Amino acid sequence: MEHNTYVMAADVGGTNTRIAVVSSQGEIHTLIKRDTHCKGGKDEMLSFLISLFKETIKKSQLPREKISGLGIGFPGPLDAQTGVIFNPPNLPGWNNIPLRNILENEFGSPVVIENDANAAALGEWWKGVGVGTKSFVCITLGTGVGGGIILGGKLWHGASSMAGEIGHTTIVPNGIPCTCGNRGCLEAYASARGITDRTRRILSETEKNREAETPLTFKDISHMVSQGDDRILPIIQETGVILGIAVANLANLLNPEMIALFGGVTSLGERLLSPMKEEVEKRAFQKAREPLRIEVAKLGDNGGLLGAAKSILVHLDA
Amino acid sequence: MEHNTYVMAADVGGTNTRIAVVSSQGEIHTLIKRDTHCKGGKDEMLSFLISLFKETIKKSQLPREKISGLGIGFPGPLDAQTGVIFNPPNLPGWNNIPLRNILENEFGSPVVIENDANAAALGEWWKGVGVGTKSFVCITLGTGVGGGIILGGKLWHGASSMAGEIGHTTIVPNGIPCTCGNRGCLEAYASARGITDRTRRILSETEKNREAETPLTFKDISHMVSQGDDRILPIIQETGVILGIAVANLANLLNPEMIALFGGVTSLGERLLSPMKEEVEKRAFQKAREPLRIEVAKLGDNGGLLGAAKSILVHLDA
Repeated sequence: MEHNTYVMAADVGGTNTRIAVVSSQGEIHTLIKRDTHCKGGKDEMLSFLISLFKETIKKSQLPREKISGLGIGFPGPLDAQTGVIFNPPNLPGWNNIPLRNILENEFGSPVVIENDANAAALGEWWKGVGVGTKSFVCITLGTGVGGGIILGGKLWHGASSMAGEIGHTTIVPNGIPCTCGNRGCLEAYASARGITDRTRRILSETEKNREAETPLTFKDISHMVSQGDDRILPIIQETGVILGIAVANLANLLNPEMIALFGGVTSLGERLLSPMKEEVEKRAFQKAREPLRIEVAKLGDNGGLLGAAKSILVHLDA
Repeated sequence: MEHNTYVMAADVGGTNTRIAVVSSQGEIHTLIKRDTHCKGGKDEMLSFLISLFKETIKKSQLPREKISGLGIGFPGPLDAQTGVIFNPPNLPGWNNIPLRNILENEFGSPVVIENDANAAALGEWWKGVGVGTKSFVCITLGTGVGGGIILGGKLWHGASSMAGEIGHTTIVPNGIPCTCGNRGCLEAYASARGITDRTRRILSETEKNREAETPLTFKDISHMVSQGDDRILPIIQETGVILGIAVANLANLLNPEMIALFGGVTSLGERLLSPMKEEVEKRAFQKAREPLRIEVAKLGDNGGLLGAAKSILVHLDA
């Protein structure tokens, strides 16, 4: 890769979209952040994205030919091989949309579409907490729970771009229902939604439905945790234990150098992380723990953006 | 790799040792099978192995220089990178033994030491049920439960040669104790030992200790299952469900093309496999199930041997 190559990168979410021009060294050159226009369906959102890409190129003041390609982190499920999007839960109308082909035709340069959890993993591995590791698993703890797996310095996509769905591995066989239709998935417990739902249930039991009437947000949860509220601490403790089982399973199964935790739920801090680590001590083999570091991701919002940039840089390099 | 290359391969177990000369095409040219001499400790066992290697070369009638290296499947834990053995539970005295160096000095040709579950995976992938797949996970269901993971056509060892320990991923957080010291590991349920122990407990409860006095073997279990004995069927059903959760977790996490089941426990047949498959249908994403085949391994005892041969062939090719 030449030193003065630039790519365009996008981190597209159901709420916000961030687009940047990024150098091949990982410097963010120009950044635009907007609310995602997705309510009007697929066509409106596509026009929104295309005009945002054009705006970003213009703002960068770089000659168009300096920008070698476009990498996008997008909500899955999608096929990273073909760049086709399959019905993301929060984006109405995106069923079987060949986003890569559409954008390649529009811009005349190579495009890579990566699922957003994989993009976050790639970003944190490339420029964040995972720098220098060869095997790196990133667990994204947001509204849902996702994951990205980097082995031997390469993102592992699996046979149908589904690899990394650690949020839907079963931790508690007869556990609570998950949005995916199953029971006991990691996501049902360790996502912001899972923590909020469990807290709401506890509060409505103990407070005779008084508090259940006002909608509880993850911000309320964070506040309760920071206040050491006794009603919520057992839930956070349980979440830490369940997350610890997932991390220990990863350690014994994949024996990576690093497992990184990414996303809003990590803001709960030691109340979550300390029972998680205890559980890993108990359940992961010592020989698997020896080379393992467990870290909280550090790039914040830029993780997915830099990962999207890296995904197209890897493609251009190949 | 030249077409007329041969390697020596060994599948060393706590009970039997099988040594063969194998061609680079995977044909078993000469095979010797013996009881493993391991009771007398490490030195006696080393002499036993070395003399068996020499006997095999002699029996093959191949000129020594035709045999390019030696691959060994050995009970773990071990470091595949350095070829050092760490205290396998069934082999007294093997602590920190640099087996690869010892054998390289003895024979003057390259040696690769691979853990036995990885060797079985490699064998089944190369010449067994996994031929043609690029991503292949093998679960060995024997006295214990092990595993080997092949991704992108290469065995994934992890950061400290511990990858693949699927037997010690937690399936039931507060489940029954496992020999590793933990609770609820796959091995505690789906190993021959786990199935036998649970059956013994049920029998001793229902039969007022009468049957518990004679030691129950896995052969007895197989017989009871084939007779449709009502006392054991719920245990086999439960084992299938737990195995199915492990397989579904692998599907969602690694999204491989094939998951193969290897070892004596698979002889329980549909009573085990059918609840396993039902659980996978329930818990694995459809997009992860689409490319996935779940198969019973087919090489039997030769799986580990051919995998050991492949491990040295890969090394010689690199």
